[in-house]
Amino acid sequence: MPKITDLNYARLLDREDPLAGFRKEFHIGDPDLVYLDGNSLGRLPLRTKARLEKMLDSEWGEWLIRGWDNGWMDLPSRLGGKIARLIGAREDEVLVCDATSVNLFKLAMAALKFQKGRSKLITDELNFPSDLYVLQGIVDFLGKPYELEILPSDDGIGIAPEKIRAATDNKTALLSFTHTYYKSAFLQDMVQVTAIAHEKGAMILWDISHSVGSVPLNLNACGADLAVGCTYKYLNGGPGSPAFLYVRRDLQDRLRQPVRGWLGSESPFEFGSDYEPAVGIRRFQVGTPPVLSMASMEDGLDLHLEAGMDALRGKSIRQTEYMIKLFDEWLLPLSFTLGSPRDPGRRGSHVSIKHPHAREITDALIRGTGGASPVIPDFRRPDNIRLGIAPIYNTYQEVYTGMLRIKEVTEKIMEGL
Amino acid sequence: MPKITDLNYARLLDREDPLAGFRKEFHIGDPDLVYLDGNSLGRLPLRTKARLEKMLDSEWGEWLIRGWDNGWMDLPSRLGGKIARLIGAREDEVLVCDATSVNLFKLAMAALKFQKGRSKLITDELNFPSDLYVLQGIVDFLGKPYELEILPSDDGIGIAPEKIRAATDNKTALLSFTHTYYKSAFLQDMVQVTAIAHEKGAMILWDISHSVGSVPLNLNACGADLAVGCTYKYLNGGPGSPAFLYVRRDLQDRLRQPVRGWLGSESPFEFGSDYEPAVGIRRFQVGTPPVLSMASMEDGLDLHLEAGMDALRGKSIRQTEYMIKLFDEWLLPLSFTLGSPRDPGRRGSHVSIKHPHAREITDALIRGTGGASPVIPDFRRPDNIRLGIAPIYNTYQEVYTGMLRIKEVTEKIMEGL
Repeated sequence: MPKITDLNYARLLDREDPLAGFRKEFHIGDPDLVYLDGNSLGRLPLRTKARLEKMLDSEWGEWLIRGWDNGWMDLPSRLGGKIARLIGAREDEVLVCDATSVNLFKLAMAALKFQKGRSKLITDELNFPSDLYVLQGIVDFLGKPYELEILPSDDGIGIAPEKIRAATDNKTALLSFTHTYYKSAFLQDMVQVTAIAHEKGAMILWDISHSVGSVPLNLNACGADLAVGCTYKYLNGGPGSPAFLYVRRDLQDRLRQPVRGWLGSESPFEFGSDYEPAVGIRRFQVGTPPVLSMASMEDGLDLHLEAGMDALRGKSIRQTEYMIKLFDEWLLPLSFTLGSPRDPGRRGSHVSIKHPHAREITDALIRGTGGASPVIPDFRRPDNIRLGIAPIYNTYQEVYTGMLRIKEVTEKIMEGL
Repeated sequence: MPKITDLNYARLLDREDPLAGFRKEFHIGDPDLVYLDGNSLGRLPLRTKARLEKMLDSEWGEWLIRGWDNGWMDLPSRLGGKIARLIGAREDEVLVCDATSVNLFKLAMAALKFQKGRSKLITDELNFPSDLYVLQGIVDFLGKPYELEILPSDDGIGIAPEKIRAATDNKTALLSFTHTYYKSAFLQDMVQVTAIAHEKGAMILWDISHSVGSVPLNLNACGADLAVGCTYKYLNGGPGSPAFLYVRRDLQDRLRQPVRGWLGSESPFEFGSDYEPAVGIRRFQVGTPPVLSMASMEDGLDLHLEAGMDALRGKSIRQTEYMIKLFDEWLLPLSFTLGSPRDPGRRGSHVSIKHPHAREITDALIRGTGGASPVIPDFRRPDNIRLGIAPIYNTYQEVYTGMLRIKEVTEKIMEGL
């Protein structure tokens, strides 16, 4: 067995990887590029190219308006049904539509309207800024007595469920937390936090953008009320592809969302003058589905269903563990600190490493100086480098090369100081 | 000169059509298909196929996350700038984002927040149902004292500005009207109704979905406050392509919309915890732009800029006038009535015809019975057949054949009764 810092160790792991075959399903281009940002934008599935060509030539081009009767209209629920299988939800509980922030707005507003006599929203300071902005915007717009409590984190990595429990009271309408934290990859305890909400009569709205496609979820098992998520990260839906929302089945017909577009009405093609919300998940839809963006998403979903979430999670853990071992060997001595939990059970599919020169290091990696191909992580202010593992296409050799290049680039930058 | 009911008359008009060359810019497929539904879904521009292929292979596939720095992030404002030139607005007054109904919600809510002490919204019963639903939803959500007044139409075709003037008072916050009415193609008087709003201190929000790309607009000249519109009809953006919004420049920094997503903030990549709205039109953006859908829209916009809105309007009027002359010859005797204004100055780019058997007639046209290629109009309950003219690709022969087939199909249906 080669040493862990030996390239042959990575080669061995790749040879033994049962998911290795999935990489050839993606557009790779430069074979030496190390792409560790699938948590920001996933790679292009090759099947998507064929699918979009067909969408243009045979569907939009030939069907024209008749496409709506040939399957386009069902895309939001059909794709939602596929996402449901990745997140432990029923197929009629998920809908693909709008942007994540728009969906967060719709569901949070629906929950507040439903939770009469309760006016407090709770989140935490490590939530994705867009989520904080949306929640603040709602509270500003509705005015008193609505208020948003933003819980502080002790360690900058995550927040303990106990702190959430202590803040939740009988005035709390809604808890809104992220499952996998965007900066640290901290995994919030979905079972426990959902239970806390329900004990106090509050509702819970999960943002699962950084989990779906990399961490198995079981929304049904924990009784989660609401969730939103993104499809352009681990799900490979394409840049800015539409988001999704989840509403637990028994809540669907009791909630009304504020943005009442025609495709959320029961009979949009009756063109009636009064809005009657559709029965079921479709009432959370607003406008006409963006068909090209939706078609570009389906093959990525299918690939994840074929690979299976448990297998993907297994590989993701092996790869982040391997990454952290190389971090300990190579980067700890270079003034790096780890910004993610060491316990893989509390960590999603990326690893955050911190360094005072994180910005310059990231720039040098992306430039690929010295004849090397680029290594693409991403930088998050002030000092975080996020290294994303998309287990469906990332290789162990990429992890190895990425970490080695970070070591080399950092050494060079430190020498130059 | 051949008679107007002679095919040679149509051929002559096609030969003399200065815009005839644009048809070859579109995917046509079956050359005998008569497509009179470009007002619902425009045809596929051939350039869009090449553009999307490049988007996949060279951009998403190769650039990956770096695409955001290579032009993707600017798509909402860059495409907005092109739409601005089609609607008489400044380039920094238009943004492509979200669905039309979501944009209507955002702008109407922003206007209501701005118009303190005013609580009445006014629209009319012929507005597109989704617009009515969104406005009703806002009023329901905000509760008293907000109220929506839906003005009735006397003739089912349009509504006189005088009725709008009579309803508008110093409690009126917002007028929300459609420029080209979806069913009748009635053209509302944008100059006069905007002036009515401003005389009474109200704001105006125009839906220009059925105008943009077929009827020249000059939002700046009439001082319009707000507008929303759709890109998948006359602009050929593709099924469900993203919508756009317009906010007059001097209002932009005074309005705040309720859906505060990260890309509407001044510095989204600072990942700050407080939302500071962007300066200018970008504050009306919410989430990550859907890049594939946006790329699929650009060539359609360019084609309209190349053709020129005045030339397109000229052809549209000639074609709808020709259609109505054939209607008078062939369809009036078959119990049809005209559902659109006869004055071309008060009519957009489609013609609505009414018949008790409109549903069966439409079905037979689309089936293309008797060896004939399909004629595709659309049906709107209870008795309307809408015949859309997209002047950038529709031929006079299509108008001729479409009207002749309606005559033949109707005669057959009437015989069978």
